[in-house]
Amino acid sequence: MKFSFPLMALGLEVTMIVLFALFVEYEMDPIVIKQTNATKLPKSERFLQLYPLFQDVHVMIFVGFGFLMTFLKKYGFSSVGINLFVAALGLQWGIIVQGILHSRGQKIQIGIKSMINADFSTATVLISFGAVLGKTSPIQMLVMTILEIAAFAGNEYLVGEIFQASDIGASMTIHAFGAYFGLAVAGILYRSGLRKRHKNEESVYYSDLFAMIGTLFLWIFWPSFNSAIAEPGNKQNRAAIHTYLSLAACVLTAYAFSSLVTHRGKLNMVHIQNATLAGGVAVGTCADMDIGPFVAMIIGSTAGVVSVLGYKFLTVYHSHAGSGPGFFHWNSSCWRSSYRFNSKDTYLGTAI
Amino acid sequence: MKFSFPLMALGLEVTMIVLFALFVEYEMDPIVIKQTNATKLPKSERFLQLYPLFQDVHVMIFVGFGFLMTFLKKYGFSSVGINLFVAALGLQWGIIVQGILHSRGQKIQIGIKSMINADFSTATVLISFGAVLGKTSPIQMLVMTILEIAAFAGNEYLVGEIFQASDIGASMTIHAFGAYFGLAVAGILYRSGLRKRHKNEESVYYSDLFAMIGTLFLWIFWPSFNSAIAEPGNKQNRAAIHTYLSLAACVLTAYAFSSLVTHRGKLNMVHIQNATLAGGVAVGTCADMDIGPFVAMIIGSTAGVVSVLGYKFLTVYHSHAGSGPGFFHWNSSCWRSSYRFNSKDTYLGTAI
Amino acid sequence: MKFSFPLMALGLEVTMIVLFALFVEYEMDPIVIKQTNATKLPKSERFLQLYPLFQDVHVMIFVGFGFLMTFLKKYGFSSVGINLFVAALGLQWGIIVQGILHSRGQKIQIGIKSMINADFSTATVLISFGAVLGKTSPIQMLVMTILEIAAFAGNEYLVGEIFQASDIGASMTIHAFGAYFGLAVAGILYRSGLRKRHKNEESVYYSDLFAMIGTLFLWIFWPSFNSAIAEPGNKQNRAAIHTYLSLAACVLTAYAFSSLVTHRGKLNMVHIQNATLAGGVAVGTCADMDIGPFVAMIIGSTAGVVSVLGYKFLTVYHSHAGSGPGFFHWNSSCWRSSYRFNSKDTYLGTAI
Repeated sequence: MKFSFPLMALGLEVTMIVLFALFVEYEMDPIVIKQTNATKLPKSERFLQLYPLFQDVHVMIFVGFGFLMTFLKKYGFSSVGINLFVAALGLQWGIIVQGILHSRGQKIQIGIKSMINADFSTATVLISFGAVLGKTSPIQMLVMTILEIAAFAGNEYLVGEIFQASDIGASMTIHAFGAYFGLAVAGILYRSGLRKRHKNEESVYYSDLFAMIGTLFLWIFWPSFNSAIAEPGNKQNRAAIHTYLSLAACVLTAYAFSSLVTHRGKLNMVHIQNATLAGGVAVGTCADMDIGPFVAMIIGSTAGVVSVLGYKFLTVYHSHAGSGPGFFHWNSSCWRSSYRFNSKDTYLGTAI
Repeated sequence: MKFSFPLMALGLEVTMIVLFALFVEYEMDPIVIKQTNATKLPKSERFLQLYPLFQDVHVMIFVGFGFLMTFLKKYGFSSVGINLFVAALGLQWGIIVQGILHSRGQKIQIGIKSMINADFSTATVLISFGAVLGKTSPIQMLVMTILEIAAFAGNEYLVGEIFQASDIGASMTIHAFGAYFGLAVAGILYRSGLRKRHKNEESVYYSDLFAMIGTLFLWIFWPSFNSAIAEPGNKQNRAAIHTYLSLAACVLTAYAFSSLVTHRGKLNMVHIQNATLAGGVAVGTCADMDIGPFVAMIIGSTAGVVSVLGYKFLTVYHSHAGSGPGFFHWNSSCWRSSYRFNSKDTYLGTAI
Repeated sequence: MKFSFPLMALGLEVTMIVLFALFVEYEMDPIVIKQTNATKLPKSERFLQLYPLFQDVHVMIFVGFGFLMTFLKKYGFSSVGINLFVAALGLQWGIIVQGILHSRGQKIQIGIKSMINADFSTATVLISFGAVLGKTSPIQMLVMTILEIAAFAGNEYLVGEIFQASDIGASMTIHAFGAYFGLAVAGILYRSGLRKRHKNEESVYYSDLFAMIGTLFLWIFWPSFNSAIAEPGNKQNRAAIHTYLSLAACVLTAYAFSSLVTHRGKLNMVHIQNATLAGGVAVGTCADMDIGPFVAMIIGSTAGVVSVLGYKFLTVYHSHAGSGPGFFHWNSSCWRSSYRFNSKDTYLGTAI
């Protein structure tokens, strides 16, 4: 058994290299274009312009998601370490799968946009990862990464290209999808084990500070996440502004409701680490539209409320409310936004 | 009493949303402008160009200031958590107050510059926050945020628009103002309590490492802080270069003097966490001027010296020198630069 | 003896200021150029375009290298603190030494490229620093910084300008050079002391999490490191893409081989903290060339394997394998890439 993980990892990397050798080429400027159309930036300049947003997303994926889970005392290193591994595999696979679906039979072109999209696709797995942390072997993570990113790319193609639905910050395709996938995996693999309380899932003082590193980098760079692949110009700028405002509004309502539902009016760290991010997810779907700044704030503040309440009252397996993993149940009629925000909670907070 | 904090927070957020609905609109390009003036970038492109500097400032506000105070053993989480709350409220309020003062009766336009300025205005409160950490309730922080940002915006309008004083890095309007405001609040609320030594204000090993996260991100991104709203072109570039050089010079003199004034020549962590940043504040006022690179280094290295010496010798309430909060006294004739650097120390180091 | 460190530090800073006053001026746009050549950006706009890449490198130097060494339990603060000091001195000295060599008798012009190159030159010292951490006094670090950066600048001038060798990510001139320099210094100063096992070199749980902050920020921003000074356009974009892919591939093989060579198939934290970065160094020399994306991945995955194996089997002083500093020996015929990857390991992992 000792050799199964390394052999699988090596086999996958060799497969990736072969796929890249066969199907991937650089995205280049045809030299002619450069002069003719002055208003549109040549792709090589667009690269540098979007590069800082790419790096913001990159920090979110590897530092943000990595450290978010370190609040579990014994899983701190697993969280950061497995996160790095899964994301590194996922981004290579994401470039291939997304590339095949969008390239319409031509070679896959790799450029700044495909790098951003590849990072996005890994986010799905990392969100699901939150639901199964400490319960999966590395091999199971490998399999989950490959399957989920393929499913994500197919789903995203369906939503974006076939249905032409707007989802600029990928709230539906990434966050809701990732949360459900994780719940499903957890449900299949560990239905019984879920009932036991895990001592290792307790958090301690320093662990919570490490987790705040993750929370803050996700919170800070979420405007980049929601605007990175938006249409340049006003749409992209609006996406950043809306996410900035929605997140700020979300913090206030999340703190207020955290204090309301917690014993003696104290703030609950898990709420602060998780619900403050709901504003970024909630505004994601419509971030680039001309909705008006105050609407973004209404969306964000609603998200903060729903996220805290959902976390408090909608936990699955009520037997271990307050101690075990905070999975949510959903009755089939749960309305869509709660759906999204709760699923958010699910992956962001697996322990109280 | 349990409901007063959440109700105030919710009330403030609702107020913000109403104010935004009434007064705030997007900053947009008039489509005509785009062709006529080729040398000036359209606002939508300027957005993406300044966005990385905005994100640097954003990291300073939420990670930098947030983690700077984690060196206090028991206040680590309060520091990061309250910092997030205060800044999230402050930036919404900052957009409104600054917008009203600068919009000359028209609607407030929200764009990348107002986002940067809103982040700036929260810095004032976060600096004052350092002086009162562990001594205020969340409600008092709410009130302080609202009052101080209003006062800041008025003061900044006075200094910048009426007196036309140069203060590109906002050293006077943000750092000195914030430090004095914090001292005043601390003085009013806790005059007697200050004499007691607080055990919770001790720092421990890991706390100091967390605080270095704050210090380093502030140190690294300070050139963005001082150059973000400078005039594009040579002025903006100079502001970044000067801050870069001033900070580097400041580190050397701060370490040297820390070693000189500390027992057995050892380095004092509080000096390293605080005095190394004085170079950024000190050069702020004149960062965009054509002063010559070496002058920036002279300013920075002087700031490092003054900051360490000020911290060592100018503490207020001499009775608890070496143990209590390191507030400075000022005689009315204290010269201006010491004023600035000491105030820096004040907010950056509230414990020895 | 108490005064020797502060006096040396102050003396050096005064020297720097004098050198800057005599030799350094701003890099400016001749106003004429602005109109004539539309395809080439004026330098003042190039400044803002490269500024985000500069800040990425800045984070690598001060947060990345600073926290990488915190995995040593007792040296956490030294690591971060001395790192800041050495880098702050080094970047001033780097601007002078590199400037003199490249300015051909004219005044040294300081701009965004010289700031990036100055940060690069400090990386050499910080790499060497890894080999001598906990074994040098601050004064020795001062001397080492001055000597090594001078030697680095000379070497880099030789490789880049005289031999015209390609080394866009500076893998040879920075990483290999820095590692050897550190080994030499360690060899000269502490030949005997090396045999003793240092208890302080043990790592503990939280230390490892802090070290992962360093690892992750280095890993995330390495594409900026390798592309920051590349030729604008396709070359620069390729350098970023190649480094991104090489690093991702490297993670998979590093994890696989770490699991292979470790007892019971577990992952070794030191491998994860170090070998995952080998992909960035390995692809550095040819990152901007038109090698094809899959070749970058082959380079990265080979680097991951060689780095783990080198760390495991090629340690110098076999007597303390598994406990002491993991210095490598090299027989004179060691092939070039192993040379590079091993040297990487050397500076990144001085303890098991």
